Amino acid sequence: MTHDDRQFLDLAIEQARTGWDEGGVPIGAALVHDGEVLAVGRNRRVQLGSAIRHGETDCIENAGRQPAKVYRNSVLYTTLSPCFMCAGTAVLYDIPRIVVGENRTFQASEDWLRSRGVQVDVVDDAECQALMQKMLTERPEIWAEDIGEEA
Amino acid sequence: MTHDDRQFLDLAIEQARTGWDEGGVPIGAALVHDGEVLAVGRNRRVQLGSAIRHGETDCIENAGRQPAKVYRNSVLYTTLSPCFMCAGTAVLYDIPRIVVGENRTFQASEDWLRSRGVQVDVVDDAECQALMQKMLTERPEIWAEDIGEEA
Repeated sequence: MTHDDRQFLDLAIEQARTGWDEGGVPIGAALVHDGEVLAVGRNRRVQLGSAIRHGETDCIENAGRQPAKVYRNSVLYTTLSPCFMCAGTAVLYDIPRIVVGENRTFQASEDWLRSRGVQVDVVDDAECQALMQKMLTERPEIWAEDIGEEA
Repeated sequence: MTHDDRQFLDLAIEQARTGWDEGGVPIGAALVHDGEVLAVGRNRRVQLGSAIRHGETDCIENAGRQPAKVYRNSVLYTTLSPCFMCAGTAVLYDIPRIVVGENRTFQASEDWLRSRGVQVDVVDDAECQALMQKMLTERPEIWAEDIGEEA
């Protein structure tokens, strides 16, 4: 992880903290094109009553409509290893690299992403883990709903 | 395809027509739980300036927050074979069956969906194809953007 990676992941973590404080799921993301932040986002299931606003998809939505060449030169930073919806979104848009804060709490898509040619770098960040541990302990039903599991 | 399947696919086609008339991408969807329509939706890239509102994801968003057991007993109807974002959303939520209007214009995820245990039934519907032929002819740049391809 480069110094820039650390800075961009920190933007995603800041989003995750905000999401937690709002009563939501503490997962955040940032989309960075050629070193410039296009957007940040966070899981807003609770805040917007949304089934599709995960951290990564909220971030990509916040970046607005972009041509293919922008995504193809971007890096997606996310505090938690992506679910298949978010992984599929990255594959749709040919985002070539995803930096993942942690994958101990949840991991589903990393092998598939790599098989599709996406570079997945896992940081194993302590604060990302701590946020998700709070989530699993204090809001387990919302977490189950967020990943399509029976509570 | 059963008589019910035809009716539910027709709801998705109605959404696709509306999307075309709005200046958008003519792809629609319906989410049906135990024979009851939870929501319909349509691609709203143009209408909402959205990168994540494909027909299927718009439909799932319109259905609101649902527990896992609802998705696991639902069928997703879509006028066009799903991209990886929409396929990944179905996999996240364990939607067991997808009925596809047509896959001649676009097909990316069907093998993967089947490998994940999703039943994919392709109808090869003439109106679904005709709508997409208009799209490719009259709005090719928007279509390229919608599937992450260079125009």
